[in-house]
Amino acid sequence: MRFPSSVRNLIRHFNQLPGIGPKAAERLVFHLLKKSPEEILGFSDALKNLGNGVNYCDICHNIASQNPCLICLNPERNSNVLCVVNKPQDLLAIEKTGDYQGLYHVLWGVLSPMKGITPDQIKLSQLCDRVTAENIEEIILAFDADIEGESTIMHIVEMFRGESIKISTLAKGLSTGSELEYADESTLSSALSGRIGLK
Amino acid sequence: MRFPSSVRNLIRHFNQLPGIGPKAAERLVFHLLKKSPEEILGFSDALKNLGNGVNYCDICHNIASQNPCLICLNPERNSNVLCVVNKPQDLLAIEKTGDYQGLYHVLWGVLSPMKGITPDQIKLSQLCDRVTAENIEEIILAFDADIEGESTIMHIVEMFRGESIKISTLAKGLSTGSELEYADESTLSSALSGRIGLK
Repeated sequence: MRFPSSVRNLIRHFNQLPGIGPKAAERLVFHLLKKSPEEILGFSDALKNLGNGVNYCDICHNIASQNPCLICLNPERNSNVLCVVNKPQDLLAIEKTGDYQGLYHVLWGVLSPMKGITPDQIKLSQLCDRVTAENIEEIILAFDADIEGESTIMHIVEMFRGESIKISTLAKGLSTGSELEYADESTLSSALSGRIGLK
Repeated sequence: MRFPSSVRNLIRHFNQLPGIGPKAAERLVFHLLKKSPEEILGFSDALKNLGNGVNYCDICHNIASQNPCLICLNPERNSNVLCVVNKPQDLLAIEKTGDYQGLYHVLWGVLSPMKGITPDQIKLSQLCDRVTAENIEEIILAFDADIEGESTIMHIVEMFRGESIKISTLAKGLSTGSELEYADESTLSSALSGRIGLK
């Protein structure tokens, strides 16, 4: 017994998505089979129209409804500070804090010898060009706190060696609400060495 | 900053699928954004065509390319035995063993007071009708080994109380390859009480 070909075809497509194995893909398709034709068509149309109205900002390389994007065009943002991120989702997370008023630069990846991602595959030369062309005084490197993030930080610091630009990275320490007892050693080391003076 | 509307729309659709939260939905959509328009269109078409060629067998209620399905029409299968399952995926798992030659009955659900699934919402009356109309001698109840599966088993046994039909359920015990040391108490109890005589 095999599932009908239309079912197998959709299972195959879901199975190609990251993190969705064959059993999960099956489960999703059987979930969709219970939906009305209108709901399925809505999903299908949303997929088909994914590219519509999606632009990439030529300045910060973020995904946007227009080019240049509204952040780059906003005269109230501090154009002397660049926050460099891996991907649009990271940019959105920083925007949600409401604490950052500078501009952004989306690399679309971080360096990873394991995954074969080299400097020329991400928007690093574009970062260099911006720092040269625009009046950038500070770069904030906001990457995941992992090996790939660290490698990318080291590479960028090396790139700007000898230039009078300020470079910083996100603080490391306890997450809000976390319990000291359960913090891993590396986090606790960072929290200790980056301790905040109070008095 | 918000993602373009087409991106947000597709994130919403993925987020409605079971087990896919808002962050996972975002990740899937950004993965798809890197794909070629042809690949996206293929996925979209696969979704749109999901219902095409999908039939439900009026006898066993399984999903099938034709009605009645090839299993119900197969004269070589033992039509005196019915294996009752929750969903088509379970039927497929049993077919893959190659050890079962009887027919099936798909309930499309199991009883669950928690999820509000009552006997009239699954194909239980159709099971009764089949047992009455066809020459069924044995029913094998093949459900997940959980509370909902157990409740459904109890309900079905009660349904056929007083009738001369044989009812069995899947054996419980150690999974192939599992380590006794790590087996949970309930599994080990079942393995002990269902021990297999060797000599």
